[in-house]
Amino acid sequence: MENKIPTTSIAQLGEFGLIDHLTANFAAKNPNVIQSIGDDCAVLETGNPTHYQVVTTDILTEGIHFDLTYTPLKHLGYKAVVANVSDIYAMNGTPQYITVSVAISSKYTVEAMEEIYKGMYLACERYGVDLIGGDTTSSLKGLYISITAIGSVEKTKVAYRSGAKANQLICVSGDLGAAFMGLQLLEREKQIFREHPNVQPDLENQHYLLARQLKPEARKDLIELLQLKEVVPTAMIDVSDGLSSEITHLCKKSNCGAQLYEEKIPIHSDTYEMAVKMNIDPVSCYMNGGEDYELLFTIDQKDYEKLKEESDISIIGHMTTPDQGIRMMSKGGQLIDIRAKGWNSFEPNNPE
Amino acid sequence: MENKIPTTSIAQLGEFGLIDHLTANFAAKNPNVIQSIGDDCAVLETGNPTHYQVVTTDILTEGIHFDLTYTPLKHLGYKAVVANVSDIYAMNGTPQYITVSVAISSKYTVEAMEEIYKGMYLACERYGVDLIGGDTTSSLKGLYISITAIGSVEKTKVAYRSGAKANQLICVSGDLGAAFMGLQLLEREKQIFREHPNVQPDLENQHYLLARQLKPEARKDLIELLQLKEVVPTAMIDVSDGLSSEITHLCKKSNCGAQLYEEKIPIHSDTYEMAVKMNIDPVSCYMNGGEDYELLFTIDQKDYEKLKEESDISIIGHMTTPDQGIRMMSKGGQLIDIRAKGWNSFEPNNPE
Repeated sequence: MENKIPTTSIAQLGEFGLIDHLTANFAAKNPNVIQSIGDDCAVLETGNPTHYQVVTTDILTEGIHFDLTYTPLKHLGYKAVVANVSDIYAMNGTPQYITVSVAISSKYTVEAMEEIYKGMYLACERYGVDLIGGDTTSSLKGLYISITAIGSVEKTKVAYRSGAKANQLICVSGDLGAAFMGLQLLEREKQIFREHPNVQPDLENQHYLLARQLKPEARKDLIELLQLKEVVPTAMIDVSDGLSSEITHLCKKSNCGAQLYEEKIPIHSDTYEMAVKMNIDPVSCYMNGGEDYELLFTIDQKDYEKLKEESDISIIGHMTTPDQGIRMMSKGGQLIDIRAKGWNSFEPNNPE
Repeated sequence: MENKIPTTSIAQLGEFGLIDHLTANFAAKNPNVIQSIGDDCAVLETGNPTHYQVVTTDILTEGIHFDLTYTPLKHLGYKAVVANVSDIYAMNGTPQYITVSVAISSKYTVEAMEEIYKGMYLACERYGVDLIGGDTTSSLKGLYISITAIGSVEKTKVAYRSGAKANQLICVSGDLGAAFMGLQLLEREKQIFREHPNVQPDLENQHYLLARQLKPEARKDLIELLQLKEVVPTAMIDVSDGLSSEITHLCKKSNCGAQLYEEKIPIHSDTYEMAVKMNIDPVSCYMNGGEDYELLFTIDQKDYEKLKEESDISIIGHMTTPDQGIRMMSKGGQLIDIRAKGWNSFEPNNPE
């Protein structure tokens, strides 16, 4: 008798495929689950008459999400919190609490852990969040930080990924691709240092790119601006895995297509110049790079007037019907199909 | 000029010392935080008129908390959920939701992940919990499971660690030390297998001990019983790190001492016999062993009548004033000081 044990490598499915696959049987039974897996946050009814609760979780692993060769521990703690509160903002919510689990190998000292917590504490201050629970344990190898963030959102203002409709405008905050170029710069210098340990790293005074990679911020200010302008996004997602991945999520969940315009995509001049210098296609920086923590959202056309003067918001296209696919009009006037590549932690050498 | 960089090894502080140390500056600012770090769960006001929310988080790491040589992945998933819902019950609450983060090395297949999730799914069913969020990523080495559990508790019935008073009765559910003995048995056979790979493992039909280690249950039934009997524990904690550690937490938080009686501590005959056989002090099994997931709680003397006939609850002593310390009267009539040893993941070869 022959027993064939099925084996499927995780890289074949990728991160999103894997989560979809593993959680397919987990239909929520509690009627207080308004939104389960499949958005930036889960949305819960807690018995509060006006607000829902939003919950998100994330795990960062050494050697995959961060490289301690060039990531100061304090920055790492800060960024770990930012990545999670960004998911709360992506629901149009306000972060309130985090819990933190850390697994560390014995090579770390208490002082190293203090640095990580100092960074988390700074981010908590910045975003008005309380650290309410934690677990710390040892790991066989490397550092792991898992954070769960909890927030609150007005019931009438939740922005799901699924709310966009054809002809609505696609907006993005800030600029894209800078964190990715910051990473390329750090990786380049790491490589040089490995081959020539006596050569001093040359980060070319690229403060903007490095800050975007090492100390990103979540867009609290944008959520406050939308509140002030009385604009409720019809759909929203944070840009953590690259624009192509995020716009694909929005389109899939909203059952829409999208039409983007390359010339409208906000890219910082430092990002552009460094990309050209390093022989990287600038489009690939924002399409497939990650960790921008900007917000990608859609608005009703009637809200255009309210936001058109905002220099920190770019209107980069509009939603279409699903049969039109997800496309970008290049600067040269060509229509390019956007394939969600994004960032897949299970593939080696990612992002490309 | 000399720069001395301070280095303190994490093992010196231990897990609880480390968390206390790292979170000393994190006083909660949001008035909706009723209880922050320092109990089985954080307790939050969500705007629900009658109930608080309770939140707990945990991380399990391969090689530290579990050994895949003898832990089936499905059992591991089950146990990971149990460990977290147990913390919710320890607040006298009802678990509702979990989020799960998993970091896995590429050596695992999708089918292996499916097994873990099957186990989690079973536990979710058993405890009436919905899995509402998750993150899956790769790790450089080994498997990491971080779970956050969210539950609900009536505002008038929260059981903190800090509520015990002198002369109240100390109770514990079920029996203690069995999970530890199950672990010893598995470790013994692993060792033999390593030295003599042709010898078949002999687990001696110790179903009870093995089940307590590999597929523990959280005490949902006990919380329901207390509800039925209209008993609100004055303080409660779950027994995950050994009785000495848990009673020390209760005493410290409640500013009390405690007097336990060895003859009253519930220990299963299988546990006792295997301990004797393996030349391990049975007292050490329940004092320093862990993972029993029983509930240790205190009650007002007036509630004694309501619980005295419950065969699954043992009254093992009473709280005293703090100057009397934490002591146990041995079967031989000697007063023994209890030092919290419990389980410290940062110390090698733990539990002893």
